Amino acid sequence: MPPTVGASKALLAPWQPPVKGDGKPFSLSGLKASAKPYSNGDKAEGKDAVEDLAIEIDALQNLFYADRRYKLLVILQGTDTSGKDGTIRGVFGRTSALGVHTVGWKAPTEHERARDYLWRIHQQMPAAGEVMIFNRSHYEDVLVPVVNGWITPEQARQRFAQINDFERLLAETGTVILKFMLHISFEEQGQRLQERVDDPTKRWKFSLGDLKVREQWAEYQQAYEALLGATSTPWAPWTVVPADSKTHRNLMVATVVRDTLKALDLRYPPDDPALKGLKIK
Amino acid sequence: MPPTVGASKALLAPWQPPVKGDGKPFSLSGLKASAKPYSNGDKAEGKDAVEDLAIEIDALQNLFYADRRYKLLVILQGTDTSGKDGTIRGVFGRTSALGVHTVGWKAPTEHERARDYLWRIHQQMPAAGEVMIFNRSHYEDVLVPVVNGWITPEQARQRFAQINDFERLLAETGTVILKFMLHISFEEQGQRLQERVDDPTKRWKFSLGDLKVREQWAEYQQAYEALLGATSTPWAPWTVVPADSKTHRNLMVATVVRDTLKALDLRYPPDDPALKGLKIK
Repeated sequence: MPPTVGASKALLAPWQPPVKGDGKPFSLSGLKASAKPYSNGDKAEGKDAVEDLAIEIDALQNLFYADRRYKLLVILQGTDTSGKDGTIRGVFGRTSALGVHTVGWKAPTEHERARDYLWRIHQQMPAAGEVMIFNRSHYEDVLVPVVNGWITPEQARQRFAQINDFERLLAETGTVILKFMLHISFEEQGQRLQERVDDPTKRWKFSLGDLKVREQWAEYQQAYEALLGATSTPWAPWTVVPADSKTHRNLMVATVVRDTLKALDLRYPPDDPALKGLKIK
Repeated sequence: MPPTVGASKALLAPWQPPVKGDGKPFSLSGLKASAKPYSNGDKAEGKDAVEDLAIEIDALQNLFYADRRYKLLVILQGTDTSGKDGTIRGVFGRTSALGVHTVGWKAPTEHERARDYLWRIHQQMPAAGEVMIFNRSHYEDVLVPVVNGWITPEQARQRFAQINDFERLLAETGTVILKFMLHISFEEQGQRLQERVDDPTKRWKFSLGDLKVREQWAEYQQAYEALLGATSTPWAPWTVVPADSKTHRNLMVATVVRDTLKALDLRYPPDDPALKGLKIK
């Protein structure tokens, strides 16, 4: 069985950058991508637990929709092959497509680049009662330009502050924000990319450009450390998820999502007194 | 086991308005909402068949996404409680939220009403490789205004032609369009509305406005008959789905979706020769 809310909080602590931190980089080097803080070691049991959580999340999403007091935004970040697609499938695979929306963010179009970088993001916010999952997000705008030297460190710091302010607006107007950074090792990424190249049914997912990004591994890790230190806030905390194990990755994300939804004390809207004893003809 | 493509076509015939018809109303009165053309009478087996189809549709959707030659638009229409939400859950419940997008269409906003009625619809088209499900659609614009007398019969005929032209544009540019009208009986709707009123966990779905629409039952059936006769085309055919039985409704819709996807002869994109023998470092 997955841990309860209380247990989960204690297990999570090392994986959550301080939310009132000094903005200093949050070191990933001490966090093993192969760690399994939520596991009891039994893989089959882990899979069952993920399935149970996915079914529980489906029921909570139904209630979340009926309640309509909140919106939920789930942000998934991580390098190529870190498992963003698989997490969506594993954690929300039992939730009806009616209640869950996803956006996979790509490089901005010319039309989008002509606006500020949060313009297109703002348009995709979940409505009341909705769940929105971002596969990549505005955090790409403080990763790619930083790693490639398109913006200065001062501009990056300015963006961190802009993002924190933007997310505070969302939170203060009813959006619950969960941010997950899927943390895999360089070796695991190598294996997963090799699998894509070797498997004819997966080869279309691979492009030679992925190798260039892999060469920038160290720079991306550093850019992630900077953003994790600067943008984990009380209203939009980050959780680093060790992601070399797919089952455990899903277990951890699903537990945080489930615990967050449960903590909202969701309820059905108040009864309309006019419906009492109503007989349909 | 669900029927094969060939068997399915023969079973479907009475439920599909002629696609090169004379535009005369398509009578619903001969089509029993309680019919089960696809059933062998075993309910448990029907449920298993739906589950098998949902898993098959998930695999086909993956390939559909990799292939990228087509877009899929599934339109669900039907009166209150006809089971549009349940169909999405049953048929696409095993497909990852990544691959399936849904829009639940409501009455247009002031901003939307200031444009033509297909303007907002066009913005929500699936992209290459995507599946989009419409819960209600532009067909509400030839139902609600007709039933309430806001447009003349001549204007309604003009809209039918506009919709056919619009859908032809979509089809000619790669969108596969499936349209389902979920057909329930007046008695079944009465029972389902009563259930919503009586069940505290479903009461929020009910509004007194639903009763007004129920009073217009005959007018809506007539409006549906007119649109089914006028807008079933070779590029965007309608299927009427007897929907008093939820399991059979899902079985029928899932079979048509599965058969349609199979008939596309989907395949993975051609290999990039540069990837042959590539070793990831």
